[in-house]
Amino acid sequence: MNRSDVKKLPPIQSLVREELELLEGRLQEILSSDVPLLDHICRYLNEKPGKRIRPTVLFLAARSAGTPDGKLVTAGLAVELVHTATLIHDDIIDDHRVRRGRPTVYARWGADAATLTGDYLYSMAFARLAEAGMYDVMNILARVTHDMSVGELLQLELRRNLDLSEDRYMDMIYRKTASLFSASCESGALLGGEVNGGRSAYSRFGKNVGFAFQIVDDLFDYIASDTLIGKPTASDFTDGRVTLPFITAFRNAPEAARRRVTELFTETFDRERHWDEVVRFVESYGGVDYSLQRAKHFIERAKGHLRDITSSPERDALFTASDYVVERAYAFYR
Amino acid sequence: MNRSDVKKLPPIQSLVREELELLEGRLQEILSSDVPLLDHICRYLNEKPGKRIRPTVLFLAARSAGTPDGKLVTAGLAVELVHTATLIHDDIIDDHRVRRGRPTVYARWGADAATLTGDYLYSMAFARLAEAGMYDVMNILARVTHDMSVGELLQLELRRNLDLSEDRYMDMIYRKTASLFSASCESGALLGGEVNGGRSAYSRFGKNVGFAFQIVDDLFDYIASDTLIGKPTASDFTDGRVTLPFITAFRNAPEAARRRVTELFTETFDRERHWDEVVRFVESYGGVDYSLQRAKHFIERAKGHLRDITSSPERDALFTASDYVVERAYAFYR
Repeated sequence: MNRSDVKKLPPIQSLVREELELLEGRLQEILSSDVPLLDHICRYLNEKPGKRIRPTVLFLAARSAGTPDGKLVTAGLAVELVHTATLIHDDIIDDHRVRRGRPTVYARWGADAATLTGDYLYSMAFARLAEAGMYDVMNILARVTHDMSVGELLQLELRRNLDLSEDRYMDMIYRKTASLFSASCESGALLGGEVNGGRSAYSRFGKNVGFAFQIVDDLFDYIASDTLIGKPTASDFTDGRVTLPFITAFRNAPEAARRRVTELFTETFDRERHWDEVVRFVESYGGVDYSLQRAKHFIERAKGHLRDITSSPERDALFTASDYVVERAYAFYR
Repeated sequence: MNRSDVKKLPPIQSLVREELELLEGRLQEILSSDVPLLDHICRYLNEKPGKRIRPTVLFLAARSAGTPDGKLVTAGLAVELVHTATLIHDDIIDDHRVRRGRPTVYARWGADAATLTGDYLYSMAFARLAEAGMYDVMNILARVTHDMSVGELLQLELRRNLDLSEDRYMDMIYRKTASLFSASCESGALLGGEVNGGRSAYSRFGKNVGFAFQIVDDLFDYIASDTLIGKPTASDFTDGRVTLPFITAFRNAPEAARRRVTELFTETFDRERHWDEVVRFVESYGGVDYSLQRAKHFIERAKGHLRDITSSPERDALFTASDYVVERAYAFYR
């Protein structure tokens, strides 16, 4: 089971099964190449696909907002390609060697091939949108990929910065995660014709779900186990990434506890010996509770943006999906 | 003096001085950021700008083809950003530590920051085009960035492949270099309104100039000196990249000479001891002469595509610029 394995997603996804099947077909077709190296990498990516969360949300938003046309699948494809490209580049940046329970492209083929594969997928997303004349979606996605690259650079810059404020953190996760959720929902609404709710309502819904999603993801680094999430926990702390659970505990802790954890927060952090102590620090100074509370808050805010829209199975599925973002955290945390 | 320092470019560039000045202003403005790390890197890039060959060609093509409007500069900007992004990512792939006589972004800030800076510049190009509603140019550029990433992957794949055919080589340099020259000229023609000559004529002109440009660039690796081109020569051979001068000599050489150079062509190549021998091999078996001859051929073909177009200072400048692509090789090679 991997981190994005959302237990309740399959029933939600059945509403957009047709689009998701078309998407898989397109991905299989696209992710093959007459360049053998690229073909190997693409096959490897297809062997263990992600949960297609972003396309699912995009498809649901489109059907909730109106009656989308056949171009919808291309938009889902573009969003998934951008997401995959980002993961591949991120693994280089963060020196991540395991994802979804197996070696990353970076670990298996090196930084050079991983850099180019990411570029290939990014450019594929834009080339397909351009081909289909989907300029509005291109416009949204160009802005977002730009935001995402700035978010990643910001994260690199702020590494090992113990004084990171919650505001700065929120800005960072907006750029690196929430912006793509927002873009997925906005593109969906646009392609649905904005009959039932305008694009800005869907965009805000997506943004807030994205905030909650990233907060929960960051929380998993402290509360889940390796086998559950398919990549090593403790990696944020080990890599020097300061996230909300830690920011909160560090803000609340007394001076002595702060000093102690600062000593641990070095490049030579000994995970075997000290990880339990760090987790205790984060838990006892409210890092876990506060993160859960904020995630719930953002989900409520997200739903608020779509509350006035006529109920439909798809809108309700968006609500269920957003609830599950927080529920999966509770499911892990017992 | 760096490899792209075209002696005759300044007089040619005076025809589009206004556009180039606007371009510099936009680059200065764009290449600054409130993320300090990114700002440092961008300032570093601006300190030693390239010769803006691709925007120059784009501007000239636009003026030669008709009367471009104010959006022209945005297209030049996008082309230059894509080019810069590619160079930054290439330096990671090829482990290049020196460019334009100083450390590369990769050497100075590491592969992580270089990957993200490339992504930042790529996405900036598309974001600016989208903002300006320049969807035709976006379309052209999306296809090209995709081609370029495949070309780079192909190059990675074909590294150390001594049997590389000339056809395969041409395919590779089309994707990695000629496609962007072609796109620059095509975009220019499009923005000029295609009054004097259609986009496909300009596109073919650009493609053939691009072929010649890359062949000469590859030749420099064998015939120029480090100080002349601002980065170490012998780097293609040392890195295992097989290019036209070598392909030709290897095709022509007798068995014993082929065997000898195959022995040298390893990851542990000793440049100090054996480089002169490799250069002699390439020269004596016709690698230099044939490459020059092919470069001249492509320039003639390029000019052929614009020959029927009404002469103008801009069209003539495109001819002069294309001639110089080959002349600079003769200038180095005495």
